[in-house]
Amino acid sequence: MEETPYRFPLENFMSSEKFERIKAFGKDKETPFLVLDLDVIKANYEALRTKLPYAKVYYAVKANPDDAVVSLLRDLGSNFDVATRYELDQLLRLGVGPDRLSFGNTIKKERDIAYFYEKGVRLFVTDSPSDLDKISRAAPGSKVFFRLLTEGLGADWPLSKKFGSHPDLARQLIKLSVRLGLEPYGISFHPGSQQRDVGAWSSAITTAGQLFRWAREEANVKLKMLNMGGGFPADYVEPTDTLQQYAEDISRFLDNNFKAEWPEEVIIEPGRSMAGNAGVIVAEVVNIAKKSVHERYPWVFLDIGKFGGLIETLDEAIKYPIYFEGSGNAREIIVAGPTCDSMDILYEKWTYTMPDSARIGDRVYILTTGAYTQSYSSVYFNGFPPLSSYILK
Amino acid sequence: MEETPYRFPLENFMSSEKFERIKAFGKDKETPFLVLDLDVIKANYEALRTKLPYAKVYYAVKANPDDAVVSLLRDLGSNFDVATRYELDQLLRLGVGPDRLSFGNTIKKERDIAYFYEKGVRLFVTDSPSDLDKISRAAPGSKVFFRLLTEGLGADWPLSKKFGSHPDLARQLIKLSVRLGLEPYGISFHPGSQQRDVGAWSSAITTAGQLFRWAREEANVKLKMLNMGGGFPADYVEPTDTLQQYAEDISRFLDNNFKAEWPEEVIIEPGRSMAGNAGVIVAEVVNIAKKSVHERYPWVFLDIGKFGGLIETLDEAIKYPIYFEGSGNAREIIVAGPTCDSMDILYEKWTYTMPDSARIGDRVYILTTGAYTQSYSSVYFNGFPPLSSYILK
Repeated sequence: MEETPYRFPLENFMSSEKFERIKAFGKDKETPFLVLDLDVIKANYEALRTKLPYAKVYYAVKANPDDAVVSLLRDLGSNFDVATRYELDQLLRLGVGPDRLSFGNTIKKERDIAYFYEKGVRLFVTDSPSDLDKISRAAPGSKVFFRLLTEGLGADWPLSKKFGSHPDLARQLIKLSVRLGLEPYGISFHPGSQQRDVGAWSSAITTAGQLFRWAREEANVKLKMLNMGGGFPADYVEPTDTLQQYAEDISRFLDNNFKAEWPEEVIIEPGRSMAGNAGVIVAEVVNIAKKSVHERYPWVFLDIGKFGGLIETLDEAIKYPIYFEGSGNAREIIVAGPTCDSMDILYEKWTYTMPDSARIGDRVYILTTGAYTQSYSSVYFNGFPPLSSYILK
Repeated sequence: MEETPYRFPLENFMSSEKFERIKAFGKDKETPFLVLDLDVIKANYEALRTKLPYAKVYYAVKANPDDAVVSLLRDLGSNFDVATRYELDQLLRLGVGPDRLSFGNTIKKERDIAYFYEKGVRLFVTDSPSDLDKISRAAPGSKVFFRLLTEGLGADWPLSKKFGSHPDLARQLIKLSVRLGLEPYGISFHPGSQQRDVGAWSSAITTAGQLFRWAREEANVKLKMLNMGGGFPADYVEPTDTLQQYAEDISRFLDNNFKAEWPEEVIIEPGRSMAGNAGVIVAEVVNIAKKSVHERYPWVFLDIGKFGGLIETLDEAIKYPIYFEGSGNAREIIVAGPTCDSMDILYEKWTYTMPDSARIGDRVYILTTGAYTQSYSSVYFNGFPPLSSYILK
């Protein structure tokens, strides 16, 4: 068996200075915990504003609802994509005005729509006649935008048919919204989270362009807004194009489909690409074990797993970079979490490695864990408390 | 298309009087919430004691760690299978003595073992040399039992290779425990959660019997305890044998393998079969929608989903009975949760139905949800608070 030295490309994710700062910051804290670097979020926001200067940012709060993250983005001028009335309460508490908010969940109770309306929100997504009915009653006269069904192929965390309507239904909804006294405002789609195929934007923008034209020509409705959702990737194990490349392609798709008549307003709803690479989870190796005398790969058990914030490792969909300090040859391992649940295995198929020198009690660093981690953690499964989260000082 | 009247076999799960009591109890509470019926847990405990009179019960706290459940079982005389120091703190707070506890997680930090030892716990599971080392240092002289690897075939929520050691390694561990000054006390296995094939016990008991004999004859070690884990089923959609049938088969397997020399102590660790059918989740229909004009099955969105406590619906592994009140013909539906996550779909492949009369805003009753639900719910995903839980009065 050939031996390969352990080599982790930390420099692809952060400078060694930053890593040392994170290490020092977390030194006396009990693992597992998440460290968030607000400078990275600021840089991500500015990069999106620079590369897609025509796009208004509606940060998807669900990706990381930490008050510090929301407050930073509030100060930077971001708008917010809100999933529930609980998130709405949080945003209002942090002083974000309702004119900067969109109720972006297609699944909503009528009394929650009324609550948003009462608080001043006037922008609502929809994808079904029954939902549109509710909006017309609970938020009369509001702007609505119509979410298209997209297939999510090519996305590491795809979106299936749960959200959005087929274009045939979207056309009915546009007409219905007029009859119900609402303002048909725009079209939205979501290419799929961590979408690594920029072609997903191409097909969705094409369909959106067709609906804009149909609305104008056949329904006498001038749609004003195109909401391109999230989907921009964060840095996990598998490579993606650069934001620059995404931005150039998307701008070209918009030019091709809308020509000189671009939508008056273009919106994006980044979540993962805003917060993902701002977070590092610091964990500890609880055990290193083989299950039989002759087993080839040791099991490495960490003190964090699927129920402590890493649920997106389901089916190994999201492959977080895991950095072991230490040296020696690389050993292939199976990585698992600490609960008494057999589903709580992180990576069994994809090859992860640790250095020979790795020992029980060592700290490991799980990178790009700033999005869809802490808020997912379970409240008391196996008695474990939810993941702690700190802002890097 | 043939029409079939909607017909839900509620009587298989509870009396209509009990159902009306639960309905009345929850009438003014905001959905979603879990209602736990302690009488059912008491009956389950007594049934296990009656059908398997030789077995000591160690309730798997993780299944439902509600203080009221733990206190009831404490008063009934149960022992407890503990997964973490957080659960240990809870049990001590509730006045359960350390002699009634077993640290049943194979994945544990040395400082946590020390904490259990300091609090008086002397019974520990193990499945690897490194773990045994830790126990010998942090809990000197304690009783250890050796968990066997089982394949979990036939289990709706299988256990894979994460837990347990192959018998070849178990033999090494038995010898090692003696050298380390620990007391090699017994063998454990877990047939897999919601195990519908009683044959899983047969093969595990056979292997355990071989190890008992090997230990006596080859290692001069008299093992005293057999821990058969959990695995007894709760009442979900798919049928299982009765507890009576399980008990008869398991007793026969024990007779066949141990003959006149049964282990001095037999332990079971029920979790799901103790708490599962004691719980009903009351939820609300948030939306009923088709995604296109011609789609066949409507999507029914509930205000609870995978992240609000129903994570065991992953891959549709656990099929909870879902009761819609109402009448009319049965409509096939897709059932999904309320979050902006496409993974939050409950049942798309297995056929669930609702009656024609079902409407947005109706309450639905998700049965057999007393185990592995509330404690799994996420802390703030999409802003949703964790699932509320009430004891039926």
